[in-house]
Amino acid sequence: MVRPFLWDSERKVLHVLDQRRLPSETVWIECADAHAVGDAIREMAIRGAPAIGIAAAYAVVLGFARGGGDSPVSRFEDLAAALLNTRPTAVNLRAAIACMRARLEPLATASAAERVRALEAEADRIAAEDLRANHRLGALGASLLPGEGPARVLTHCNAGSLATSGYGTALGIVRALAESGREVEVFASETRPYLQGARLTAWELMADGIPVTLVTDGMVGSLLAAGDMDAVVVGADRIAANGDSANKIGTYQAAVLAKEHGVPFLVAAPFSSVDLETPTGAEIPIEERGPEEVVEIAGRRIAPEGVPVWNPAFDVTPARYITAIVTERGVARPPFGASLARLAGLQRQ
Amino acid sequence: MVRPFLWDSERKVLHVLDQRRLPSETVWIECADAHAVGDAIREMAIRGAPAIGIAAAYAVVLGFARGGGDSPVSRFEDLAAALLNTRPTAVNLRAAIACMRARLEPLATASAAERVRALEAEADRIAAEDLRANHRLGALGASLLPGEGPARVLTHCNAGSLATSGYGTALGIVRALAESGREVEVFASETRPYLQGARLTAWELMADGIPVTLVTDGMVGSLLAAGDMDAVVVGADRIAANGDSANKIGTYQAAVLAKEHGVPFLVAAPFSSVDLETPTGAEIPIEERGPEEVVEIAGRRIAPEGVPVWNPAFDVTPARYITAIVTERGVARPPFGASLARLAGLQRQ
Repeated sequence: MVRPFLWDSERKVLHVLDQRRLPSETVWIECADAHAVGDAIREMAIRGAPAIGIAAAYAVVLGFARGGGDSPVSRFEDLAAALLNTRPTAVNLRAAIACMRARLEPLATASAAERVRALEAEADRIAAEDLRANHRLGALGASLLPGEGPARVLTHCNAGSLATSGYGTALGIVRALAESGREVEVFASETRPYLQGARLTAWELMADGIPVTLVTDGMVGSLLAAGDMDAVVVGADRIAANGDSANKIGTYQAAVLAKEHGVPFLVAAPFSSVDLETPTGAEIPIEERGPEEVVEIAGRRIAPEGVPVWNPAFDVTPARYITAIVTERGVARPPFGASLARLAGLQRQ
Repeated sequence: MVRPFLWDSERKVLHVLDQRRLPSETVWIECADAHAVGDAIREMAIRGAPAIGIAAAYAVVLGFARGGGDSPVSRFEDLAAALLNTRPTAVNLRAAIACMRARLEPLATASAAERVRALEAEADRIAAEDLRANHRLGALGASLLPGEGPARVLTHCNAGSLATSGYGTALGIVRALAESGREVEVFASETRPYLQGARLTAWELMADGIPVTLVTDGMVGSLLAAGDMDAVVVGADRIAANGDSANKIGTYQAAVLAKEHGVPFLVAAPFSSVDLETPTGAEIPIEERGPEEVVEIAGRRIAPEGVPVWNPAFDVTPARYITAIVTERGVARPPFGASLARLAGLQRQ
């Protein structure tokens, strides 16, 4: 299975698969300190809300494995501040940092080695839990697409193995369908500017032998109008308490188009992407990135020098366009406020 | 003013600006025969429904200026068949060929030189009429966007100088607004796969000093949701009798999104783009192009080898999403069937 990172416990190194160079090259970045992990997140060598949460957890481990002589609490808060600053929209990073903080708290009198061991165990737990959540939500999501013939699914961006600890959220549902013996046809929108659909989703599905067809982002409406699409399935970077969901730019319009064509629109995410402290999508910060991602592709300039660019990395899909939110704790349905609150009250499975 | 072609009457050569290489390089292709013009159209060195109609007219001139010894009628029909085959969706090419055929008919006993002179005059007339139509429809369209503050217009693809004999249709409206002293802000969606928005619209508006901001195709929904957009204005490759309009892929979903956000959606085209013989959009042939346009950008591969691609070059926007169709003969309004028929009955202005 494709994974976006490998943790070397013995050497205390996080190997990050450089997703900027996929699919043409498979290059691993050796991150030996927290700073290197922060750079990999900021520069999108690793991306996907769950994956950057896990990477940040290992960054904390690295920060303690190779730390200076300051107090554990101030070291942690410095690390946390730097990591939280890398990408503001996804909430999983914040959730992972909170887990690491909670694990550190009772270790005030522990030795440095004990602290590293405990933090590493916590990072391992976060990664393992994410993988388990993906398998569970994948199966739940697959059950929402009943039928006999091939399941036709449109996805945007990459919410797959490469965005998580492996298996994926939106693509976890696709994989669960395929594993159940159902024929699946995936349509992947290329997802400009970073091209996660063309570079990553197409690549990881082809690696698994799951049929995938690439379209540009402007073809989504025509594809839905052509009929026969069973669902649009996407991931999420943060889900507000009312169900409004932030995800890769282009998701919002895919949701509007899905509704216009009567196609179910499913958001798939681990429950760690649900942020009950954010009441609605209006309070989700939307990261804006630099113009170079839009005006250069693979190092080639494709727009005039100096042209102004608007480059929000995410958008918010209002809950009214969402058919269901699929998490490992269960499937939330409208009204999402009540449904998500109910899932939040359940024990972790 | 930027123009997509220059006709050298003395040497009988059509110089075609190679739009595939814009904005980084300004390269002109010398087309000395009809075959070369056909290649330039098929390979999209020149594109835009009105521009390819005019180029095809000059191709007929070249076919007679440097023709073989066959009969004028069979020579014309061979030329027409080859040119009509280059790109099936736009109707202007067919309309231009029909004009050339009508001009040729009374010349059965004319000398070869007289025929070339007459055909050249007809091609010149088609080009001049297109330019006049652009100015006229630009002024009519501008009057549909009244107000005091800056006019904010979203456009898709390139329906500008580069797509016409100069001035443009959608961008003709923008230019007319700017010439009237109104502040205009244009948002250009990049228009994958060929990037007409990023490469051409941004370039020609910057050349004219009209403010333009580039967005990716997946940002259209968010841009409209952010409010303050006065209109979405696009061109058309063919308008059916009922108002259904074929235009660059991505137009249909922009129209759906405009309606969802209560933003007027204007189609701007010379009346030669209206095809009363095509009853509805369902009868408009949609050209599908090869996968390489999607999987390669500026010669760099951006998707896995062998990935299947769906690459329709156009889509059809049903009339119900269109607020008005702006032509040089007047502005058609719903119900478009009656409105377009009325404009068809008017004399050319």
